[in-house]
Amino acid sequence: MYSKTSLETKRSHILIAIDAMGGDFAPVNVVAGTIDALRETSNRFEVVLVGSGDKLIREMQKYKGEELRYHIQEASQVIDMHDPATAGIKQKRDSSISVGITMHKEGNADAFVSAGHSGAVLSTATLILGRLEGIGRPTIGTFLPTERGVCLLLDAGANVDCKPQHLYEFALMGSIYSSEMFQIKNPSIGLLNIGEEESKGNDVVKEAHKLLRQSKLHFIGNVEGRDILPGKSDVVVCDGFIGNVILKFGESIPSFFKGRIKRIASKSLFMKVFSGLVRNTLREALKSMDYEEYGGVPVLGVNGVVIIGHGKSTPKAIKNMLLRAEEMVRKNINGRIQETLTIEK
Amino acid sequence: MYSKTSLETKRSHILIAIDAMGGDFAPVNVVAGTIDALRETSNRFEVVLVGSGDKLIREMQKYKGEELRYHIQEASQVIDMHDPATAGIKQKRDSSISVGITMHKEGNADAFVSAGHSGAVLSTATLILGRLEGIGRPTIGTFLPTERGVCLLLDAGANVDCKPQHLYEFALMGSIYSSEMFQIKNPSIGLLNIGEEESKGNDVVKEAHKLLRQSKLHFIGNVEGRDILPGKSDVVVCDGFIGNVILKFGESIPSFFKGRIKRIASKSLFMKVFSGLVRNTLREALKSMDYEEYGGVPVLGVNGVVIIGHGKSTPKAIKNMLLRAEEMVRKNINGRIQETLTIEK
Repeated sequence: MYSKTSLETKRSHILIAIDAMGGDFAPVNVVAGTIDALRETSNRFEVVLVGSGDKLIREMQKYKGEELRYHIQEASQVIDMHDPATAGIKQKRDSSISVGITMHKEGNADAFVSAGHSGAVLSTATLILGRLEGIGRPTIGTFLPTERGVCLLLDAGANVDCKPQHLYEFALMGSIYSSEMFQIKNPSIGLLNIGEEESKGNDVVKEAHKLLRQSKLHFIGNVEGRDILPGKSDVVVCDGFIGNVILKFGESIPSFFKGRIKRIASKSLFMKVFSGLVRNTLREALKSMDYEEYGGVPVLGVNGVVIIGHGKSTPKAIKNMLLRAEEMVRKNINGRIQETLTIEK
Repeated sequence: MYSKTSLETKRSHILIAIDAMGGDFAPVNVVAGTIDALRETSNRFEVVLVGSGDKLIREMQKYKGEELRYHIQEASQVIDMHDPATAGIKQKRDSSISVGITMHKEGNADAFVSAGHSGAVLSTATLILGRLEGIGRPTIGTFLPTERGVCLLLDAGANVDCKPQHLYEFALMGSIYSSEMFQIKNPSIGLLNIGEEESKGNDVVKEAHKLLRQSKLHFIGNVEGRDILPGKSDVVVCDGFIGNVILKFGESIPSFFKGRIKRIASKSLFMKVFSGLVRNTLREALKSMDYEEYGGVPVLGVNGVVIIGHGKSTPKAIKNMLLRAEEMVRKNINGRIQETLTIEK
C-alpha cells in the first residue's frame, strides 16, 4: 500500500531492501542516505525501505515532490541491540531485518543492507538465505586503510572460533571480493600470525597455513600485526575474535590522536594559532580510517548479497552501503565465489 | 679479569646483568645505553656487560677515564634471531643470554635485561630461574599509550594458547606491576573480548571472566579493542596471540601516519611550508607510542627480574631498560606477587 510503484511488476532495475529501522539514527539517517543514493545515481536502482510504514511516510514527507524510486515494506517489529542474535528467526520474525531478508530470499529484492544489530543480520541471513555451497561459515569482512590503499580483513567478528578450513574459505572469498570490487588482480593473501615462520602460531593457524599453501590462491604466507597498515597483503585472514579486536582498536585511533593534538595545541599560543591547520591535516590523514567512506562491510558466504553497516551510520555511510550493494549485485560476487570453489576442488 | 671492581666483594649496590650482544646494534648501543644509565644515576647501581670481552673492551675504550661501575662477564656465544628459542639451554649454553641469566640465578646479579632474542630470553629465564610458586605460565607484558596515561597489556606474545587460569594469573601479576611501578592504586583489570556482555567470546575467555569476577582483583569486566586507547582499564588481559598482534599493529601506527602526512603535504605549497609544524606536532602526539620511552617490557612470573627490549633498541631504550630493572628490584615486585597469590588463595 505504501509503494510508489508496484513491486509485483517485472523489475528491470536492481532493487535493494534496506533495514529502515536499523542503526542509532534510524529511520532519519536511513531515509536521508537512501534519498542521496537515489538522487546521485539518477534512480539507477530502486530501494525498498523496510520498517514502520507510518514512521517512514512521515520521514519521507521531507522529500515530497521528487521522482525517486523507493518503496516501503511494512515490518511491525524492530530488533534492538539488547535482543539476542537469534531474534530475527525466533521472537521477532516480523522485524525489519527478517522481513527484508525474506524479501531478498523470495526474489523481491536483489540485496539487503542494514545498520542494525549485526549479529542478528548475520544469523537471520545465514538461516533464511542459507550458505553458498561449499562454504562452512559465512563471514563478515572489514576494510582497513593501508599505505597502498585498503585491505580486506576477515573474519571481523562473525566467527569467534575457527577451524583451518574456515580460514581457507575466508581467504578464498576475500580474494574474489577484492579482485572484483577493488579491481586488484590476483589479490595477495596473508594469514595473520605472530611471526613470519611457518612454525609460528597455534595449531589452527599452522594447519590453515598448509591449506593455503596448497591452494591456487596467491598466498604470501604469514603476516604480522605490523604488516597490516603498510599493506603487505590485500587480504588478511584471521579468526573473528582477533579480527574484531583489531577492527575496534583501529576505529579508536582517530579520536585518540585528535585528543592528543588538542592537548598539545593547548600548551602554547603559537600552537593554538596553528592547531586548526594541524587538525585539518590530521583529519585528511585519518579519512581513510573512516567507516563512512566504505559504508558497510559485506557478509560473504550466504546465498545472497548482504551488507552490514555501523550502528552510527551517517546518511553518507548509508548511501555508500547502497552503492556497494548495487555493485556486488552487478558484479555477481557470489557467482564468482561458487565458480572458484569448483575450480579449487 | 675484565672487571673494574671485583664481583666477589660483598655488593652494597644493585647489580644488573645486561646482554651486551643482544639487539640489532649490539654491542654499540648496549654499551652506550649502559654508560648513560650509570652517568645519569651517578653509579647508583652497577652493571655487568655479558658478552665477548674483546669486543666490549674495545667498545669501552670510548669511555675511558670515567669512573663508572661496570663489569664485563665473558660469554663466548651469541644467540641470533635464527636460533630456536631453546638455544639458550641447548646448543648455546655459553651465550650471553644463558650466562647472564645464570649469574642472576646464582645471586651474582639482581636482574637481567636483554634486547636480544625474546623467545630465547623467556625460555632460558623460565628454565634456569624457574617460575614463581603458583604461577603456571610466565608472561611478557607490553605498554600501550592511553588517553589517561599508559596501560599494561599482557600476554604480549609469550603464550599463544592460554587456559582461563593463565589469564587470571596475568591479571594478578599485571595488577601488582601497575600498582607498584606506575603508582596506580587498585589498578582496574579488563578482559579483552569482542563485546561487553559476559556471554561474549570463546570458551576460554568466558571461563576466565568467571575466575576474575570471583577474585579480589579490581575486575571491571570485558573490554573491547576500542577501549584500549581511551584507557578504560589499567591492565588489559588477553592471550599472547592477540596481544602480539595488537602490540605490533600499534607499533606500526606512527610510520603509517608519517607517510600519510608527507603525502598530504606534498600536494600544496602552503602545506609544504607548514608540514614541518604538522610533523612536529604529530611526533609529539606519537611520542607515547614510542617503545624507547618504556625501554623494555617485563617478563612476569619467573623467579627473577628479567626485562626484554626491542631488537632495535637505541641507547636511550637500553638506559631505560636498566632503570626499569633497578626499580623492579627495589620494589620487590616478585615478593609482592607471591604475597598476593597467598592472599587470593
